[in-house]
Amino acid sequence: MKEVKVGIIGFGTVGAGVAENILKNSEVVAKRTGVKLVLTRIADLDITTDRGVAVPRELLTTDAAVAIRESDIVVELVGGTTIAKKFILEAISAGKHVVTANKALLALHGKEIFDAAEKAGVDVCYEASVAGGIPIIKALREGLVSNRISRIYGIMNGTCNYILTRMENEGADFHTVLADAQKLGYAEANPSLDIDGFDTAHKTSILASLAFGRWFGMDPVFVEGIRDLALDDLRYADELGYRIKLLAIIKSNNGKVQMRVHPTLIPKSTLLANISDVFNGVMVEGDAVGQTLFYGRGAGRSATASAVVADITDVALNIAAGSVRRIPAFRPGEQFEQVAAIDDISSRYYLRFMVKDCPGVLASITQILADRGISISSLIQHERYGADGAVPLVILTHKANEREVRNALGEIDTLSINQSPVKLMRIEDI
Amino acid sequence: MKEVKVGIIGFGTVGAGVAENILKNSEVVAKRTGVKLVLTRIADLDITTDRGVAVPRELLTTDAAVAIRESDIVVELVGGTTIAKKFILEAISAGKHVVTANKALLALHGKEIFDAAEKAGVDVCYEASVAGGIPIIKALREGLVSNRISRIYGIMNGTCNYILTRMENEGADFHTVLADAQKLGYAEANPSLDIDGFDTAHKTSILASLAFGRWFGMDPVFVEGIRDLALDDLRYADELGYRIKLLAIIKSNNGKVQMRVHPTLIPKSTLLANISDVFNGVMVEGDAVGQTLFYGRGAGRSATASAVVADITDVALNIAAGSVRRIPAFRPGEQFEQVAAIDDISSRYYLRFMVKDCPGVLASITQILADRGISISSLIQHERYGADGAVPLVILTHKANEREVRNALGEIDTLSINQSPVKLMRIEDI
Repeated sequence: MKEVKVGIIGFGTVGAGVAENILKNSEVVAKRTGVKLVLTRIADLDITTDRGVAVPRELLTTDAAVAIRESDIVVELVGGTTIAKKFILEAISAGKHVVTANKALLALHGKEIFDAAEKAGVDVCYEASVAGGIPIIKALREGLVSNRISRIYGIMNGTCNYILTRMENEGADFHTVLADAQKLGYAEANPSLDIDGFDTAHKTSILASLAFGRWFGMDPVFVEGIRDLALDDLRYADELGYRIKLLAIIKSNNGKVQMRVHPTLIPKSTLLANISDVFNGVMVEGDAVGQTLFYGRGAGRSATASAVVADITDVALNIAAGSVRRIPAFRPGEQFEQVAAIDDISSRYYLRFMVKDCPGVLASITQILADRGISISSLIQHERYGADGAVPLVILTHKANEREVRNALGEIDTLSINQSPVKLMRIEDI
Repeated sequence: MKEVKVGIIGFGTVGAGVAENILKNSEVVAKRTGVKLVLTRIADLDITTDRGVAVPRELLTTDAAVAIRESDIVVELVGGTTIAKKFILEAISAGKHVVTANKALLALHGKEIFDAAEKAGVDVCYEASVAGGIPIIKALREGLVSNRISRIYGIMNGTCNYILTRMENEGADFHTVLADAQKLGYAEANPSLDIDGFDTAHKTSILASLAFGRWFGMDPVFVEGIRDLALDDLRYADELGYRIKLLAIIKSNNGKVQMRVHPTLIPKSTLLANISDVFNGVMVEGDAVGQTLFYGRGAGRSATASAVVADITDVALNIAAGSVRRIPAFRPGEQFEQVAAIDDISSRYYLRFMVKDCPGVLASITQILADRGISISSLIQHERYGADGAVPLVILTHKANEREVRNALGEIDTLSINQSPVKLMRIEDI
């Protein structure tokens, strides 16, 4: 049986999971594929901390170059965009295949890495970089290869989804739940990458690039996180039949691609709205297949390892079959050169005003919206007062242009009837 | 660019969808993969009926042998288990690769076909045979390759799911909805294959075989359909927090594999319970990835074509890369020789009695259950009478052995308090 040597760089949570998976399940993988994965080296600066996996002592090294030299496939699980990039490029130039889960690195420097891999004639795989254990990259590139993709929606950050689920279920505010999530290990000490939407944005860029055949990078991705989400907004959304999720939205419209990440109202009856806690879900719509949804754990030691080892096996099968780069790391395809600016999108909107309780306020606001062709689909005004005597007024609009909506809000602002900034969120009816 | 010749045998609904997909999207596929699919021949006995796709007249032939001779990849979309098998074996022995959507044929004669393919050194792919457009076979074999599979649940028959969804939403009975579904083209004139569960059973056998490395065939699959499902049972289930789905259940327990298809109560809050209408969903649980779910259209012209063309592309990539049989049609693996008989399973049960309204009835039934160690988790008895004065009594049990439950029901039957046969359904808490 063909044996393929696997070296891991980075013995953290995921690295330990990958080592464990190979030690525990490589026999099953061998029976299923005819290829035997052999763990040859694990490199990390810290090789003394117990990672909860019984790895033979002699496999551990502090020298990444050793792991690269002694392997056919190098698994980069260091994270970050500096040293990880260096290791990957070193592995590639040594003629080694690379498997990585590093979404930030790929979103930012994918092109450079893929060009190097093409030159060296090696495979680079990154299933675990998007939505953890869900085989979404394989589904998009292979299972749905014959589809023109029209839309992708993704709930792709477990930390945010966990926080939003708890806010909704417990009626607790953002900062309370975040603090608790940090205590439980569901959120980092510095949570910005997750809660400000950047992690989701990295994944969005990767999926959009695969769907539309151009490596977009991060510039075209519009990002808003969940840090400013008020519990009241979750309550109003609920009252109107919606749940709020940090949603990645990728759409192709008239030859322009939209890529955006922001808190989004989605109807409670949809499957996406029912993806809770740390789970991820990605909805892909193609012209042939219609709507599909892929659901599972988007992070964590063993779920991420599942995707990493699937990639390792894919490369191992290529090595065994002599078909390296059968599906290259990235192949430019449809080449959408046009990216839609956020101002140009058309969407439904959730607008929450905190207004002075005096005559004519509602008339003024609705008139300004009407003047700009922004049509109201529903409205809530309760007899509920903020601390400053402000009354919440929630308006859901029909589809409107973002620029028009922002201009309308600017105009409303000049009336001095808002007691605090208007909360704007977008709605997707899916 | 490498061109690969594709011949279709069977120009029905799916055949037309595949032809349309190749004509419409092969350019996108070429950009994405570097391989160009070229439709060379479409064979059918009827080549005059308009299939709603503009195929050059000279591609059509009534001779399947011509389609086989002039293609690299032969797509079998005839259906059935006789002539389809003949065409496939002829194609294989002519050294052609085969793509099929024929679940019945594979479930029954898969081994013979795969053996022939191995001998001839060709690929046989069948993504479209299970859950239509959902790339579940690829997910199971490649994306989740490093997982030991513990459970698979599938809603895999669109006709049944459509009927159950309408019964539930409209309070209409089975036969009314079936008749309407037939009128709308969602059910066949002879609906037995769908509503009696055999179609789902074929798919169950295929998924179980892939998960556990032994081609099981149909014998070990326990099947009950939805023909006898009373609207009242949907209502009682709803009252108790459950929805009824025709569920495929594949489980590995103590080295024994269960394969069963039957109407099943599942909690309304689960994603599976919320898969409605003609949609399919497959939940796969692995030791590394945890729970995953794959959702989409399980049938229909263009969704099925999406899966068929994905297979064609996979084979075309193998041809281009010189890696035919990189992943063979089937590779025996873990070899679970043990299949659990239905009598040996342990499950929760829904039992609906129609009993005489006289003293001691409830005491007698519950005593017999208790004597056999069958514990009751909930119970409904309403003041509602059948035409014959019978009172419905619904009992949900905790986990119990099927044989014990059947024995208990046999014993209860001797009491002559049942006005009609007890309705037994199984519950999965997922």
